Amino acid sequence: MSGYATPPLRPFQITFDAATAVVDPAGPVLTRRMADLEGLFRDQRAWQELRGSEKVVYSVHSSPVPETPRELPQSITTISPGELSGELFMTKGHQHPDPQGEIYLGLTGTGGLLLFDGAEHAWLDMSPGTIGYIPPGWAHRSVNVSADEPYRFLAVYPGSAGHDYQWVLDHGMGARAVRLGDAFELVPYGG
Amino acid sequence: MSGYATPPLRPFQITFDAATAVVDPAGPVLTRRMADLEGLFRDQRAWQELRGSEKVVYSVHSSPVPETPRELPQSITTISPGELSGELFMTKGHQHPDPQGEIYLGLTGTGGLLLFDGAEHAWLDMSPGTIGYIPPGWAHRSVNVSADEPYRFLAVYPGSAGHDYQWVLDHGMGARAVRLGDAFELVPYGG
Repeated sequence: MSGYATPPLRPFQITFDAATAVVDPAGPVLTRRMADLEGLFRDQRAWQELRGSEKVVYSVHSSPVPETPRELPQSITTISPGELSGELFMTKGHQHPDPQGEIYLGLTGTGGLLLFDGAEHAWLDMSPGTIGYIPPGWAHRSVNVSADEPYRFLAVYPGSAGHDYQWVLDHGMGARAVRLGDAFELVPYGG
Repeated sequence: MSGYATPPLRPFQITFDAATAVVDPAGPVLTRRMADLEGLFRDQRAWQELRGSEKVVYSVHSSPVPETPRELPQSITTISPGELSGELFMTKGHQHPDPQGEIYLGLTGTGGLLLFDGAEHAWLDMSPGTIGYIPPGWAHRSVNVSADEPYRFLAVYPGSAGHDYQWVLDHGMGARAVRLGDAFELVPYGG
């Protein structure tokens, strides 16, 4: 058996329920509440008022494939519907310290994939069956654009890519997604 | 813009139709007939008789993401139902010259993922919504186990992994999937 993770992985099946985000066999589960999203929303005063909230903004259910070189882990992210002073619920966003491509596959609900390479931003509308391609070098954040439904997607990414969350605090994401009537608009990040 | 492929890729959406295997935007399409599968089926005499057949054994529709380092390409493979002297229709199978993990996600029909690391083999049953995890170092081949339906899956793999088809001709795949009544069985590769 040729192994790269420790202990070496054998071939195995992973099943998931797109309606519940349950991944089987299960790996790590990450739960993000307001307190975990410091410095990310535009309205810092509103964030301060809600930072003690127990409400889950998003969760990430990973498969057991580890984030180690040569492996290809996957995870399912669920973003709750909601907003903070009009800014739509979103993931922290991150850059890959080791620049490598990633894909997101929409599972349920409607969302968007906001990307930023430090100079320009891009937005991809996401719905079930859509693949969003994240080229190496583009920081990425997901946003739930629905007012009432969770937005859920499957991510597949090289195990050596890593997650640099500080990059987004230092550079922003180029734009923010803000509720506009029944829809939303992208506004400048600093605006 | 930070680019790694030439020309650099920008973020973009890829949609696919699980019922037809149409990928939009489309990349390369590969079509394999009997003549492309020399040396792979157990019954070489039967293969010789059918080597001129126009029947498509399987096809691979790729997205436009190129197979270059740091990118994460995807493709949809469709294997026709069928068999040659009882051996179920299958892909050529390959090893990654640069050992890296890969995932297959079942889309339609029922199939199997046969893996071999040079010493032992493994088999994963595949159906819609199942992810088969291919650890680095395991050669992999897909098989359609249905007698009447195509088996179709989405593959996601690192762009630098590569495809070594000769490895399978040199080492085999550890086992063969052979029709047994309404089901199938795995038999020794050399048997």
